[in-house]
Amino acid sequence: MDRILISHGNGGKDTQNILQKYIFSKLPEDLKKTNNGLGLDYPDDGAVISSGDKIIVSTDSHTIDPYFFPGGSIGKLAVSGTINDVIMMGGKPIAILDSIIVAEGFPLDDLDKITTDMISILKEFNISLIGGDFKVIPSDSMKGIAINTVGIGVSKNPIIDRVSEGDSIIVTGPIGVHGSVIAALQYGIETQLKSDVKPLMKLLEIFDKFQGDIHAARDPTRGGLAATLNEWVQLSGKMISIDEKDIPIPDEVKSITEVTGLDPLVLANEGVAVLSVSSDKAENIVEELKKLGFEPSIIGKVIEPKNKDNKGLVIIRTEVGGAKILEMPSGDIVPRIC
Amino acid sequence: MDRILISHGNGGKDTQNILQKYIFSKLPEDLKKTNNGLGLDYPDDGAVISSGDKIIVSTDSHTIDPYFFPGGSIGKLAVSGTINDVIMMGGKPIAILDSIIVAEGFPLDDLDKITTDMISILKEFNISLIGGDFKVIPSDSMKGIAINTVGIGVSKNPIIDRVSEGDSIIVTGPIGVHGSVIAALQYGIETQLKSDVKPLMKLLEIFDKFQGDIHAARDPTRGGLAATLNEWVQLSGKMISIDEKDIPIPDEVKSITEVTGLDPLVLANEGVAVLSVSSDKAENIVEELKKLGFEPSIIGKVIEPKNKDNKGLVIIRTEVGGAKILEMPSGDIVPRIC
Repeated sequence: MDRILISHGNGGKDTQNILQKYIFSKLPEDLKKTNNGLGLDYPDDGAVISSGDKIIVSTDSHTIDPYFFPGGSIGKLAVSGTINDVIMMGGKPIAILDSIIVAEGFPLDDLDKITTDMISILKEFNISLIGGDFKVIPSDSMKGIAINTVGIGVSKNPIIDRVSEGDSIIVTGPIGVHGSVIAALQYGIETQLKSDVKPLMKLLEIFDKFQGDIHAARDPTRGGLAATLNEWVQLSGKMISIDEKDIPIPDEVKSITEVTGLDPLVLANEGVAVLSVSSDKAENIVEELKKLGFEPSIIGKVIEPKNKDNKGLVIIRTEVGGAKILEMPSGDIVPRIC
Repeated sequence: MDRILISHGNGGKDTQNILQKYIFSKLPEDLKKTNNGLGLDYPDDGAVISSGDKIIVSTDSHTIDPYFFPGGSIGKLAVSGTINDVIMMGGKPIAILDSIIVAEGFPLDDLDKITTDMISILKEFNISLIGGDFKVIPSDSMKGIAINTVGIGVSKNPIIDRVSEGDSIIVTGPIGVHGSVIAALQYGIETQLKSDVKPLMKLLEIFDKFQGDIHAARDPTRGGLAATLNEWVQLSGKMISIDEKDIPIPDEVKSITEVTGLDPLVLANEGVAVLSVSSDKAENIVEELKKLGFEPSIIGKVIEPKNKDNKGLVIIRTEVGGAKILEMPSGDIVPRIC
């Protein structure tokens, strides 16, 4: 098996060769730059983007063990993750940059599959790869591969998350799937479940159609639904109340979390969005989401805290009729996924 | 000694706490976003930048062993490196994003020094930190720390590297210093040399003053001067001829490269630029560079190849009167620095 050598990271001929073979040759010319911009078509110190709109930028470092999993790979995850962050800001993704750190001895066939995964998503959604970096580090310092991606998008009206009193909280699909798949792999549990990792490009149609009524949008990755909802109430000083019975948790997720003791609400999702929307439009938005192939559910609402102590709390109403606080995740979240 | 825990990377409360302590609390409010933009002041999926100019974006992954070295740290290196890439495109750096991957067990005191180094440069040059990521991975998968940085700049007239016949090639300072420092550390050689790592912000004054006469600008990091000059002739189909005697290589660099057998022209520089400029302005540019505190030298020129076989060659005229081809670096470049 051909493997990564330290020389592949020398910044010279060997790096040029490996990038040519595993990345550039897979990319159509028009996806090497943005309109009137400059990118991989002309290797310089940086990329140039021309835009009259506001520019959205996000970055994420992706490390995952194992780097192939049912439903995807670290490559699909890295590109989808950064595209989704741009979309959740209301941005139309136009380009990404990628930075790969790989350990000496890493199988080149695996690198090939990973870069193919990355680029097939870029091609599907017509997003350019305009720059990046490639580093090899000794096998005694690192195992596997880490991929950093930078997402660039344009938007006339970015969605700056500001949940409002009375908003309905919508999730666009089943919760806890990606995290459960990785947990099953790490714990050796058999499951038919596949990761939900995918770009949420179609959401842009919803954001466009219901502009002004989408008050917040986020993809609940690391830290899961619990982290997203807690961040929203921290930012706004509101409360959010959700109903346990309305949260769409697949049976396969439930069986994995029951065996492992994990909480599906802190598990990562990689192809789901959480939206906070005007309540009078919530049903319309749900209908439109269904037309686009999503499986949305209204799971709760934003409420004005009656007293100061309740500011910033997320309350979950349980199926047996009680209520408890859904805390910001803390301590080790297993599985360790990103 | 307090150390990094896996829970510090959970994306929840522990991650918030560590980012607050080691990054956010060190940053003034106005450096948490760009003008009319959005950044760390309002944690969302991405950052927003408003600009009518062209946007320059670059990204780099930084791994270095050891992560502290004479003259700097991986933090100083990561921020300076990405700022310099933006500057070499003629961009005024306005913001960075950083993504830190750190191994479980990493000393928190070291993280503190590294983030302090990063932020002190941002403060010195008034550059905002508008987003990022923070991941912890198990100590059996990685040692140390890797930092990915994204540099964002604005420019009305980006410098797209296009060397022209007759251009003079200028280096703005001594060559091979950073690489030699790291080599000395890895080989256990004693030296007084310190890394040249620093942002090259003052070059923007030169680019502004001599606009149109600066045909190419690059910082010769990994792969050194040899990689930069070879990339330029590959892009342009020209030849470059440089004079060995005019290349400013400090005696301390020479003694390290003589002991180790390394070539100073492939060693990384982290505070030096190479410029290709109109020859009739070269002396003026050198004078202005000196006024700004640089130690520039004209080391060669761009020539039109007389025949097709010579397209894309870099020729080095040796001190003894001969000439040889300066190849694109290949194979292992030691030390492994980024």
